[in-house]
Amino acid sequence: MNLAIRGRLAIYFDSNLKLHIIKDPLVLVEGNSILDIDSFSKLKKEISNHDIIGDENQLIIPGLINCHTHLAMTLFRGLADDLPLDIWLRKHIWPLEDKLQANDVYVGAKLGAIESLLAGVTTLNSMYWYPSSEAQAFEETGLRGMIGAPVITGIAELPEAIEVIEKHHNTIQDRLRVSLSLHSPYTVTIPDFQGANDYLKEYNESQVDKPKILLHTHLAESENEIEQSQKLHKEHGIEFPEVSTPTELLESTGILSEYLLAAHCIHVNENDIKILEKNKVRVSLNPLSNAKLGNFMPPVPKIITDISSVGLGTDGPASNNTLDLFDTIRFLALYYKGFLHNPTLIKAQEVFQLATIGGARALNWRGIGTLEPGSLADIITINLKKPHLTPKNLDDSILNHFAYAMNGNDVENVVVDGKVVVKENEILRLDVDQSINEVEEATNRLLS
Amino acid sequence: MNLAIRGRLAIYFDSNLKLHIIKDPLVLVEGNSILDIDSFSKLKKEISNHDIIGDENQLIIPGLINCHTHLAMTLFRGLADDLPLDIWLRKHIWPLEDKLQANDVYVGAKLGAIESLLAGVTTLNSMYWYPSSEAQAFEETGLRGMIGAPVITGIAELPEAIEVIEKHHNTIQDRLRVSLSLHSPYTVTIPDFQGANDYLKEYNESQVDKPKILLHTHLAESENEIEQSQKLHKEHGIEFPEVSTPTELLESTGILSEYLLAAHCIHVNENDIKILEKNKVRVSLNPLSNAKLGNFMPPVPKIITDISSVGLGTDGPASNNTLDLFDTIRFLALYYKGFLHNPTLIKAQEVFQLATIGGARALNWRGIGTLEPGSLADIITINLKKPHLTPKNLDDSILNHFAYAMNGNDVENVVVDGKVVVKENEILRLDVDQSINEVEEATNRLLS
Repeated sequence: MNLAIRGRLAIYFDSNLKLHIIKDPLVLVEGNSILDIDSFSKLKKEISNHDIIGDENQLIIPGLINCHTHLAMTLFRGLADDLPLDIWLRKHIWPLEDKLQANDVYVGAKLGAIESLLAGVTTLNSMYWYPSSEAQAFEETGLRGMIGAPVITGIAELPEAIEVIEKHHNTIQDRLRVSLSLHSPYTVTIPDFQGANDYLKEYNESQVDKPKILLHTHLAESENEIEQSQKLHKEHGIEFPEVSTPTELLESTGILSEYLLAAHCIHVNENDIKILEKNKVRVSLNPLSNAKLGNFMPPVPKIITDISSVGLGTDGPASNNTLDLFDTIRFLALYYKGFLHNPTLIKAQEVFQLATIGGARALNWRGIGTLEPGSLADIITINLKKPHLTPKNLDDSILNHFAYAMNGNDVENVVVDGKVVVKENEILRLDVDQSINEVEEATNRLLS
Repeated sequence: MNLAIRGRLAIYFDSNLKLHIIKDPLVLVEGNSILDIDSFSKLKKEISNHDIIGDENQLIIPGLINCHTHLAMTLFRGLADDLPLDIWLRKHIWPLEDKLQANDVYVGAKLGAIESLLAGVTTLNSMYWYPSSEAQAFEETGLRGMIGAPVITGIAELPEAIEVIEKHHNTIQDRLRVSLSLHSPYTVTIPDFQGANDYLKEYNESQVDKPKILLHTHLAESENEIEQSQKLHKEHGIEFPEVSTPTELLESTGILSEYLLAAHCIHVNENDIKILEKNKVRVSLNPLSNAKLGNFMPPVPKIITDISSVGLGTDGPASNNTLDLFDTIRFLALYYKGFLHNPTLIKAQEVFQLATIGGARALNWRGIGTLEPGSLADIITINLKKPHLTPKNLDDSILNHFAYAMNGNDVENVVVDGKVVVKENEILRLDVDQSINEVEEATNRLLS
């Protein structure tokens, strides 16, 4: 049976970045894609035996896209906050990660997927250990996304990563992709970056009609990445190039391309931004995590003006501490206004774009992040009949509510790949309480 | 019938700022106060024919305290965002406020009170026009708080404000107080500040056992307040003192005292902070609003270290855009870590303190913001059995979830003055949809 979605208002950017606002809309879904979207009065005659969800209180928008997280880190949420980064990592997170088993990652990722779907995230890009466990979580929850095949010099090697790609890339009815996750320029050597990139280029050139693989890395997140990288290369007896920023370092290796997704991009200067855009590098901004970890903040106003493919990420739930992209959306909309004393910076429409079509561009994933006919049916509806989303007299108000007042809990229905996964605030076919209990048991064991 | 509240954990600061964490707690309420709080096993024999709310998933904490807002500005939420402050005020807000009628303020304040209660705010301090309309909203919704009797030179005069105090101060079973709301040092002249302060001193000295009146003002919110104040005084032919900051200006008038509540305090230098503390001035910090309006940001780390009575405010819902204090709590916990590159600044425990007992101190309201026996029964419970509040293995995690993961929607039960006003996420005895409709009708008329 096909699906039809009713609402009070539909808002989306199309793939040419044109904003569409449709009053009293109807969305017709056929299979896993959007057949049509227009006003109810125009399309109502097309409804035959459709399942109808939504009502006159719903805002219909594309599912949100979380471009960078470490999904299973739900296991560590809130365990150790307000600490220096070094102590947080070395004394708390890493010792726990040393004890991780595949099942921990499965239960952590499953809970993270449930949390994400309930908050209106329909596509999510994760980088973590035990990617097959994460794949299982995507399969069972109905979430769309990308998992990482990890590469860290001396710890996780390329051949193993290639196995993950061969096993999981473009599986689960095309809902799941795999990235080559080369952790960072200070944990992966230049030859390892180049080796991975050679494989990626060959793979992508041989796959004409299929989704390409991305290389996913942390770039310029912390201050001393060049020194750390120099140290790494010295330990491995590898000559280090004459560069002064992590972006220049990656450029020198020849791996910058439209297949690179760089997360964070905090310590990037004007020249770095030019380098990234010239090479069509994709960027995930994770400003809420950057603030919480006390990092410097990325030059967001410049990045979103100068770089074409930019999306938003929550980062891992141990450094955020939620997977609710609305928290990141609001923080981004607010932070730079205060920081740069300019209330016109990072407007509501801009954060809406970053969280939807921007995310699709960042992940190089055609057909998501929009509601235009022919696109994939990843759609959420938000109940506007709430005190904190009142009044809604003006269409502009709804975009402002999106940026400054909504949170994931306002999401009422979630459709991924044409299937209803959340209906009237309840996730279907999954036992949320059981998933919570599984994580608490896993965390108990890890802490013991 | 008396009330008993069960939970998984209770957390509160007592009036000596000592943190208490009670596992498997029971709270006994008698009339409008807390009779006792301890572990369930110790107190269970005291339960006779109590009404019992809560369960083993609930976190029990004091009701949150919103120290500065303009409650009825729900009417203007989201109507005009991302604009320069001047244009926002002069082209959008003020023309709408010119059309305001008493009933608009009533419906706007009522919706704001409902929104606040649903998000766990049990005490709220508002400054707005038509205070009697706001008083009606407090009475009908069961919220505790303070309304402002407005004084603006040339627009609203002291005698009228005194009438508001005489009519509403310490009414509605002591749930409602009135402040003398002298808008700011640039809209109120020195003689008007002094006249109001003379009245206040006399009133407070004559009321031995009754709640004192506070003087509530915006202080050092925008950059050029001294110049604006000079202009105001010139227009009224009043000599202007030799001062360089708004704080020095108020000090020169002799009105600084423990009865002054100063909202914002952005442009305060080290000497100003000394002056404020020396005079026992109370402060409401409203960092989320400050960011959204593109103001400079207040020196929060210094203010909370050096000043004794500091609470948090949302500011008006047109400049936030919610009345959910959790949004302000999280923004505060995150902003300064990022801004000052220090993840140890503004810890979870500190924001919890500011939002509870700190707010009680800022409003000079004895018996709220804590759960210690004998205090007023303003209590909220938060359902911890949620994906985004998992895991909860450590007590510390719960405080971290408070700062970094909770939002108002997680609040399940709300008790004000011993009465249950929100039960299992539903506000009792009030029609939320009707209140939403009333605001949309009022806003429609104002926009027309």
